[in-house]
Amino acid sequence: MADTNSPPTMKDVAREAGVALGTVSKVINGIPVGESYRVRVEEAVAKLNYRVNSYAKGLKTNKTSTVAVMVPNLVSPFFAMLVNSIYRELSNRKHRMLLFATDFDPTQEQEYVILAEQQKVDGIICLSYNPELKVAESVPVVSIDRYFGGQIPCVSSDNFGGGRIAVEKLYENGCRNLAFMRIGSKLTNEPNKRKEGFISACEMRNIPYTLKIVDDGTPYSAFEEFLQEHVNDGRLDFDGIFCVTDSLACRIAGYLRGMGIRVPEDVQIIGFDGVRRFGDQEYFCSTIVQPVDEMARTCVEVILERDMGRSPSLVCLPVEYAYGGTTRS
Amino acid sequence: MADTNSPPTMKDVAREAGVALGTVSKVINGIPVGESYRVRVEEAVAKLNYRVNSYAKGLKTNKTSTVAVMVPNLVSPFFAMLVNSIYRELSNRKHRMLLFATDFDPTQEQEYVILAEQQKVDGIICLSYNPELKVAESVPVVSIDRYFGGQIPCVSSDNFGGGRIAVEKLYENGCRNLAFMRIGSKLTNEPNKRKEGFISACEMRNIPYTLKIVDDGTPYSAFEEFLQEHVNDGRLDFDGIFCVTDSLACRIAGYLRGMGIRVPEDVQIIGFDGVRRFGDQEYFCSTIVQPVDEMARTCVEVILERDMGRSPSLVCLPVEYAYGGTTRS
Repeated sequence: MADTNSPPTMKDVAREAGVALGTVSKVINGIPVGESYRVRVEEAVAKLNYRVNSYAKGLKTNKTSTVAVMVPNLVSPFFAMLVNSIYRELSNRKHRMLLFATDFDPTQEQEYVILAEQQKVDGIICLSYNPELKVAESVPVVSIDRYFGGQIPCVSSDNFGGGRIAVEKLYENGCRNLAFMRIGSKLTNEPNKRKEGFISACEMRNIPYTLKIVDDGTPYSAFEEFLQEHVNDGRLDFDGIFCVTDSLACRIAGYLRGMGIRVPEDVQIIGFDGVRRFGDQEYFCSTIVQPVDEMARTCVEVILERDMGRSPSLVCLPVEYAYGGTTRS
Repeated sequence: MADTNSPPTMKDVAREAGVALGTVSKVINGIPVGESYRVRVEEAVAKLNYRVNSYAKGLKTNKTSTVAVMVPNLVSPFFAMLVNSIYRELSNRKHRMLLFATDFDPTQEQEYVILAEQQKVDGIICLSYNPELKVAESVPVVSIDRYFGGQIPCVSSDNFGGGRIAVEKLYENGCRNLAFMRIGSKLTNEPNKRKEGFISACEMRNIPYTLKIVDDGTPYSAFEEFLQEHVNDGRLDFDGIFCVTDSLACRIAGYLRGMGIRVPEDVQIIGFDGVRRFGDQEYFCSTIVQPVDEMARTCVEVILERDMGRSPSLVCLPVEYAYGGTTRS
């Protein structure tokens, strides 16, 4: 690993190009100068590998080419996938990412938003668990999965549609008695619509269904107990289960196998998210796949191109079913 | 989501405290002023929730409280775990994280290093695939897993020790004919030592062993073919396999099961990394666990507290074995 010299300054560019400092500044800021001057400056910029000091630029233009991204953590594969895609989109548009991990703490989220604003980021993309989150009007914000009432654009999967697709798939595969299982935050957010879609499709098809919904912090054994209560003569009451996440679906499959009930022969299970083993291998279970790349692209477009008056208040992007071994097809 | 007013400035603090702007500046920069002035400024800072504009501060002090973190991507769970831990350590020390994902591209890595330097980060933590990486002497750099020759501190797991622990565990579990399997970059890096540790322990114990090592880009089916070539009368030649990552270990277990060979009854497998399903559930396989939190803490300590003359050139942190279903114990 060798050393480079200290980074070139605008003065170095002016010297190399043989022009005045003001001319360099104009070219860099896109202000017209004589063609030959522009060419000389651009050649000097390329030769010296000069880059604009974005801290100085941030002070002058109020733009820092930096977007803050706020998620609970990176160890949950869905959040990691999402941040990875948002990073790619920002990078394609020559923007940097300042990452904040909130650990689901509403107070920390509010702190981070204030911090991001003070640091003059060009926007904030947040997956928030703070329904009272306050943001300055001057900073564009896009929310993922939490609808804040219209003035903050929200980007989400079509969670309602996903719930319906899961029911349709289970029905098509022969299931006639369904259960929906969820663990998660009590707060209103878009993923709640997975349940609504599930109920809607069951009722349309006259399929009997049962809901097992518990709050964050409940031990997972609550689901095991629920399943045990619904076994009669060695058979589970349900032949199809839709779980709010892939993570829960895999736990449920594990409990059932431990109880001697076969997946997918006796019970078919569909999760939600579409995460893959090790990030790039097979799906953990049959699943409703969230369009993570499209969600990331939409967030970044809304942040960087928004015209506040015209931004949609909610964008739901289409999901699709993928087979992952816990259903018959 | 309500609006806040625009963030308070140093002038607002001076007005609130009833002191001169210079006094506020002194207090913020830790320069002594009269006790009553200091108290008034601190009270005004607290009341207004004033935060230092770190872009302005970055220009003046050459410190931005920002550390750049460079990894190939976030979808690989080991990288995601590592970034998550580094984030926590930086956050505990009131530093922000600027994230760069390099997608294993050496050119992009070099670009990012130059970018990070120009943006006056306080340091760079990188997991690099560019053995020619050039960095300015003015920016502290810590490398994860790649040793650059001494002047750049390198933090890594005890990969050599991990290879030995894997062999010892397989031997203890009754294995007497071992294989080591690896897919990865041809470049010299610390994880190569997993193989060296494996060989060292096999030779010490006089255990016969076979190596199957392929470069990145080789199709995984090469491993399946290798396994098939080593089946005689329905039995695999090896009774224990050590794989360079958990990801490879799970693929190998899948191939073997597909061939009708039982894991762990006929063959025991140990991976490396210690990643968990969905980030917080069980291990994917029996594994050598990397001490991710300690690695992150060490990187951050070396970056923020380093005294260039005294930084160690290589810090290897202890690993440990964890049972994950692909061994007998």
